[in-house]
Amino acid sequence: MASVTVGNSEFDRDTAVTRSAPGVYDAHLSEGWTIINAVNGGYLLALMGRALGDALPHPDPLTVTAHYLTASVPGPAVVRTEVIRTGRTLSTGAATLVQFADDGSEVERMRVLATYGDLAALPDDVRTTAKPPAIPPYEHCLGTSPTPERGGGTPMAPDGRPAIPGSTAIAGRLDLRLDPATVGWAVGAPSGKGEMRGWFGLADGRDPDPLSLLLTVDALPPTAFELGLRGWVPTVELTCHVRHRPAPGPLRVAITTRNLAGGFLEEDAEVWDSEDRLVAQSRQLARTILVQ
Amino acid sequence: MASVTVGNSEFDRDTAVTRSAPGVYDAHLSEGWTIINAVNGGYLLALMGRALGDALPHPDPLTVTAHYLTASVPGPAVVRTEVIRTGRTLSTGAATLVQFADDGSEVERMRVLATYGDLAALPDDVRTTAKPPAIPPYEHCLGTSPTPERGGGTPMAPDGRPAIPGSTAIAGRLDLRLDPATVGWAVGAPSGKGEMRGWFGLADGRDPDPLSLLLTVDALPPTAFELGLRGWVPTVELTCHVRHRPAPGPLRVAITTRNLAGGFLEEDAEVWDSEDRLVAQSRQLARTILVQ
Repeated sequence: MASVTVGNSEFDRDTAVTRSAPGVYDAHLSEGWTIINAVNGGYLLALMGRALGDALPHPDPLTVTAHYLTASVPGPAVVRTEVIRTGRTLSTGAATLVQFADDGSEVERMRVLATYGDLAALPDDVRTTAKPPAIPPYEHCLGTSPTPERGGGTPMAPDGRPAIPGSTAIAGRLDLRLDPATVGWAVGAPSGKGEMRGWFGLADGRDPDPLSLLLTVDALPPTAFELGLRGWVPTVELTCHVRHRPAPGPLRVAITTRNLAGGFLEEDAEVWDSEDRLVAQSRQLARTILVQ
Repeated sequence: MASVTVGNSEFDRDTAVTRSAPGVYDAHLSEGWTIINAVNGGYLLALMGRALGDALPHPDPLTVTAHYLTASVPGPAVVRTEVIRTGRTLSTGAATLVQFADDGSEVERMRVLATYGDLAALPDDVRTTAKPPAIPPYEHCLGTSPTPERGGGTPMAPDGRPAIPGSTAIAGRLDLRLDPATVGWAVGAPSGKGEMRGWFGLADGRDPDPLSLLLTVDALPPTAFELGLRGWVPTVELTCHVRHRPAPGPLRVAITTRNLAGGFLEEDAEVWDSEDRLVAQSRQLARTILVQ
């Protein structure tokens, strides 16, 4: 595995944006972060976050909300940002992601509203009752192994245990290892609990930072699978709070769904760093579009 | 107590907006929903939600995010809305609230991004592991009694128990009764737990609806008080998911803070209706601005 640093990685390259006018950025949505044909929502959020980080005077996303409007496709895209307010410690901005139809008309993919700050400038006090999730050691968790060319993931079955189906291109970008207690769905035996947990890293070894946390909160399989639902669970809205700059090393992610009602469910994610700090909290509202 | 209905209440009158141009609404921020001099953020959210409900083709807020930019003051205000996307079952819009400085210049107070739908059209399936909070009966909880003129609340001490200090105008609009286990702060003995729970209603008896839930999620005292913090806890961002149309009758609200770090904390609120349905979930990111 190549050793890469922040700024020099698949994630950084694929979320890069180029300013083409004040507040306007050209981007290319990579095929490397797709699940079947859908571009991962967390990847899109990170890309938008990078554009806003350039447009706003503060470096770090503190709270970012995205409403997903239409399905993004790999290829060219444009991010337009708006600086709403800049203050001494916080600044707020909005952003829109658009792509173009065959006839050249614009199609809006997502809309983002975010407040940025400087995590390094915050006092170091912590008072928390939150506890890291209980996840078995990395080597006892289940993952997908990237193919050599990283074009797509090949399901892996270590120790004869079941591999995770449905892996696609994004599997080659992630070093994801799921708690076996939350992958019953992969062998037709979902637990019935709305839980998904695992270890998260980037496959090329890039360490986490506030921007990559925006990807992390939406990169695990949906909890709906463990609830026994089959189908799609498209995100309507996702809000992520980045609470601390993550330490280098692997992250742990725990996602919980408590309430499925009227064809909607919430997914609450927590991300913990290698120093047992709660570094991000997110909640999304998703629709359940079932197949029989 | 006067018997009022939805559409005919203090809440409806004070959140009313008048369309002055396509997508633009005049409003008057009422003095009746202030805490000391600050206009309550939940009240503002409901007012913005009403404007968006007029601008969008779907009636009910499903997920609403607000970023609070500057402190609103009672008086005239203008809401400008933008319809971002209208679909068959969901529509998405943005809104901004502005007021005017003495020199006539505009000051933006808050920015909102929201997706609306039709709660009555959703299937009636529910699968939930969420349980209503354990709150003592209404008559054993502690509240504030409105003054006859409703201009401000007079702290009440039933049975000799402590009243809740800091009550101001909004106390006259709400029928709020807090779980005694979460009001230790009022007598200088905070529990140290980031919890606040209670019964919630509108003082004039108006039943809850999806719009009033936007007020409900931000109407209790801050959990920071029970953590022993003294000062202000201004909301940076609040996101509310409305999950079901509430049944008539009193609501129960439970708010939890798990993580205080770097001068920020989250407040997670759940709202339950009289039929034991989880009708709203919210999370806000707030700053702690302490006084010694």
